[in-house]
Amino acid sequence: MTEYAKPLSVTETPIPGLVVFDLPVHGDARGWFKENWQREKMTALGLPDFGPVQNNISFNDAAGTTRGIHAEPWDKWVSVATGRIFGAWVDLREGETFGAVYTTELDPSKAIFVPRGVGNSYQTLDENTAYTYLVNDHWSPTASYTFLNLADETAAITWPIPLDQVEISDKDKAHPRLQDVTPMPPAKI
Amino acid sequence: MTEYAKPLSVTETPIPGLVVFDLPVHGDARGWFKENWQREKMTALGLPDFGPVQNNISFNDAAGTTRGIHAEPWDKWVSVATGRIFGAWVDLREGETFGAVYTTELDPSKAIFVPRGVGNSYQTLDENTAYTYLVNDHWSPTASYTFLNLADETAAITWPIPLDQVEISDKDKAHPRLQDVTPMPPAKI
Ligand SMILES: Cc1cn([C@H]2C[C@H](O)[C@@H](COP(=O)(O)OP(=O)(O)O[C@H]3OC[C@@H](O)[C@H](O)[C@H]3O)O2)c(=O)[nH]c1=O
Ligand SMILES: Cc1cn([C@H]2C[C@H](O)[C@@H](COP(=O)(O)OP(=O)(O)O[C@H]3OC[C@@H](O)[C@H](O)[C@H]3O)O2)c(=O)[nH]c1=O
Repeated sequence: MTEYAKPLSVTETPIPGLVVFDLPVHGDARGWFKENWQREKMTALGLPDFGPVQNNISFNDAAGTTRGIHAEPWDKWVSVATGRIFGAWVDLREGETFGAVYTTELDPSKAIFVPRGVGNSYQTLDENTAYTYLVNDHWSPTASYTFLNLADETAAITWPIPLDQVEISDKDKAHPRLQDVTPMPPAKI
Repeated sequence: MTEYAKPLSVTETPIPGLVVFDLPVHGDARGWFKENWQREKMTALGLPDFGPVQNNISFNDAAGTTRGIHAEPWDKWVSVATGRIFGAWVDLREGETFGAVYTTELDPSKAIFVPRGVGNSYQTLDENTAYTYLVNDHWSPTASYTFLNLADETAAITWPIPLDQVEISDKDKAHPRLQDVTPMPPAKI
């Protein structure tokens, strides 16, 4: 389910550049329709004109599936096509806000802009959740990411479902704690 | 369900410029991941560098929900985030292929590039189907579309579920038959 007919609007977060959008969703007898990204209207509200070159979709079978925490060398426009997520973002950029955390729930009526260097993660709140995002650089298997462990005690994210009860990739289980993370330097951002 | 691990590949159709892509889908214990659009790899295979400025998602509750037939003054990259559709495309551009029809099924491992002037329509084959597309111009309520009736006898699309049993918008029920459609002139394309 989602909330219908909200006006397009933007909300800042404590992490610089991480901004949440409310999206108008038009419901009718068929289901619903939304402009999931609209360059003109959204840049007018302050969204960077980020120039996507890739659109990724990750589909999650079970509620509780958890992915992250990945800070990438490109910007992301993140939303869900169906289902709901609890999202958690941790600033992994060098500087005063290193380690700052923001969490919120996303249903289809929300989107979030995640600037490069901010760690991205989510846990699905519904089964069959389709997570979709646009990025402004091409992924490569050798791209240099900055990772943080989902269970990091300093970030102390309160996951709705405890991490020992959910599906997590082996790669994600192996990420370092905050004290072992090298902050992403401005040169990479 | 979807098919996993196919190589990225492209298939031409009888409608000029309408091309179907097979997408690699990576399955794992969490669900799956796909590059739904990847500018570099896909333009290398002949996809136009179409420059999207808007991403739309339409969500359909029931199997059988049918939308179309809409030829728009912009190009579209169409796929599904979850569920399956029977898609039908009718060339509504002025010229020799006016009225040509192509149909195929799309699951998450497929995408199709629909050039401007080609009429687009679909019927969902599963409940809770999320249909997602990227377009290279901003929609406006006054944009000039070319429409064709879903039940047109000349196009004679064999819908999996008969149209009198499915959800269709009143707007879509009112579209003209092929003989009453003004072909989209090259100036608009
Ligand atoms: C990001 C990405 C991944 N892949 C492949 C690699 C794997 O075979 C498969 C899944 O990749 P994972 O890294 O395990 O996926 P996930 O844990 O979901 O993380 C990815 O999506 C969310 C992103 O935040 C993260 O950076 C990215 O690596 O998809 C691609 O083919 N292209 C890509 O762009
Ligand atoms: C296409 C579009 C529509 N809308 C609004 C108008 C309606 O309130 C609502 C649904 O629009 P419809 O035209 O009824 O949707 P649909 O029948 O699904 O058709 C739309 O999506 C598929 C497209 O092929 C079609 O051209 C487009 O009009 O969304 C927007 O706000 N922005 C848009 O870009």
